Amino acid sequence: MKLTTLRLPSGATAAVRQDGDAFVEVTGYADLGALLAAPGWKDIAAAADGARHPVQGADLAAVVPAPSKVVCVGLNYASHIKEMGRDLPAHPTLFAKFAETLTGPYDDIELPAADPAIDWEAELVVVIGKRARRVAEAEAAGYIAGYTGANDISMRTYQFRTKEWLQGKMWEASTPVGPVMVTPEELGADAAITTEVDGARMQTGSIGDLVFTPEYLVSYISEMITLNPGDLILTGTTGGVGRARTPAVYLTDGQTVTVAIEGIGQLRNVTRAQAVGPAGPAVLPAGVDLAAASSGNA
Amino acid sequence: MKLTTLRLPSGATAAVRQDGDAFVEVTGYADLGALLAAPGWKDIAAAADGARHPVQGADLAAVVPAPSKVVCVGLNYASHIKEMGRDLPAHPTLFAKFAETLTGPYDDIELPAADPAIDWEAELVVVIGKRARRVAEAEAAGYIAGYTGANDISMRTYQFRTKEWLQGKMWEASTPVGPVMVTPEELGADAAITTEVDGARMQTGSIGDLVFTPEYLVSYISEMITLNPGDLILTGTTGGVGRARTPAVYLTDGQTVTVAIEGIGQLRNVTRAQAVGPAGPAVLPAGVDLAAASSGNA
Repeated sequence: MKLTTLRLPSGATAAVRQDGDAFVEVTGYADLGALLAAPGWKDIAAAADGARHPVQGADLAAVVPAPSKVVCVGLNYASHIKEMGRDLPAHPTLFAKFAETLTGPYDDIELPAADPAIDWEAELVVVIGKRARRVAEAEAAGYIAGYTGANDISMRTYQFRTKEWLQGKMWEASTPVGPVMVTPEELGADAAITTEVDGARMQTGSIGDLVFTPEYLVSYISEMITLNPGDLILTGTTGGVGRARTPAVYLTDGQTVTVAIEGIGQLRNVTRAQAVGPAGPAVLPAGVDLAAASSGNA
Repeated sequence: MKLTTLRLPSGATAAVRQDGDAFVEVTGYADLGALLAAPGWKDIAAAADGARHPVQGADLAAVVPAPSKVVCVGLNYASHIKEMGRDLPAHPTLFAKFAETLTGPYDDIELPAADPAIDWEAELVVVIGKRARRVAEAEAAGYIAGYTGANDISMRTYQFRTKEWLQGKMWEASTPVGPVMVTPEELGADAAITTEVDGARMQTGSIGDLVFTPEYLVSYISEMITLNPGDLILTGTTGGVGRARTPAVYLTDGQTVTVAIEGIGQLRNVTRAQAVGPAGPAVLPAGVDLAAASSGNA
């Protein structure tokens, strides 16, 4: 089963099930997060028979537009870690995003004027289906509603200003999530995950290469904090990001970035440089040194 | 004016104004976050005349129990940075917490069995009063509703397992926030901030020593993402944390930790070791090595 959140012409959103070339509304649920919070969501979704909308040209929101938390993993693909000459990590590296950081799978992505080094990161995303606290790894599969994709667009100058990555990872509407959540049986164990920029292949990986599996991550994170239905875990990216290239390659205005996961589908986003007046961006906080920032990869 | 969120005997909560030894309900607002989201919240709060409750013995929730985001700052007290022999940073270090991480100013704090190195951090907290995006530093004061206090209880073993601090900072109900939010005119520019553990003074600082001011932080963060009414910014801690002592000192079962900020009041929390059976904690995720963890300060 494929579920997601559709933006309606009225401005409202609706949880929908994909049936071939149609999205079918799950009446009474404003988005997939609301649906997942309902006991028996899977049966409700399977039985839904609301208004139908064509998949072609549909305006999708982030699969879950406002999760209570978004936990992200760094350094999680074995082949990428090994090609960098590093040992496999003993523990997952975790950082956060906020709900406002998420955006739809076909939305434009603003490239802020304050950072000239903006990069892509294709990621598999775990969607939580049931409240989870201190769940053993062997039980964790029962707490996973399904999987979706994300492009963890990263503002590298800000990310590496300090040791903590958050400020390069939390920009408004910078992380597209989608296009749909598939229930676990629809995702192959070695599904391909790729990124293309204007049609040029940049990342190629397999989700079978994850060091820390979705079940391990649900157990590890739920030892610390409650995971709620609709919460998202971004599981990290594979080799081929722009910053790791020689020379580094970053996104520029008007490019199309396509992240695809086999069995889930594509996120396609066009980059848009932040509009600035002749005197520069309307507001830059004190301390932002554009000349220093544009010298490249911090 | 002093505002906060009171737990009622019914199990519900209410936004309240402190009038001397009474809390007065601001009728119609379930917590301070809901009140701050209302246009004209300051007039509404000042005019409130709802049910009265004694301050003595009151059961307070986190000042804002469920903010849409919590942004935290590391390394922000000049005297502490200098005593460590470091240069003042050019940019604030940012990390996140989640709403479930927060708890009331008098609640017990669980010490998880998985981490033997749990520490205190007294912090001044900025409470956002108005939606803020790309706000200039000179305008930022208009977006600050007031100030409160927090104890950024930190699980140091997890914090330093990887380069990213989040996993030491996001544990369930580990960060008390309160006891009240004071509007800006009630906070002195050099208010004292202190921590005591079982009556022994551990941290002593002044908020006048902040490298990045509340206004600077609102501007810097709002360049990246929207700050909503009720959102919290934890502004970092001063010298005297347990990890920086020789030898390191960590919290143990049954201690009382008191964080006080002059003009705001005290947070007083008793530590409670996680209950474990004879076979150890009910659930430990794979990879948690208690023997290695207990060797001390990672």
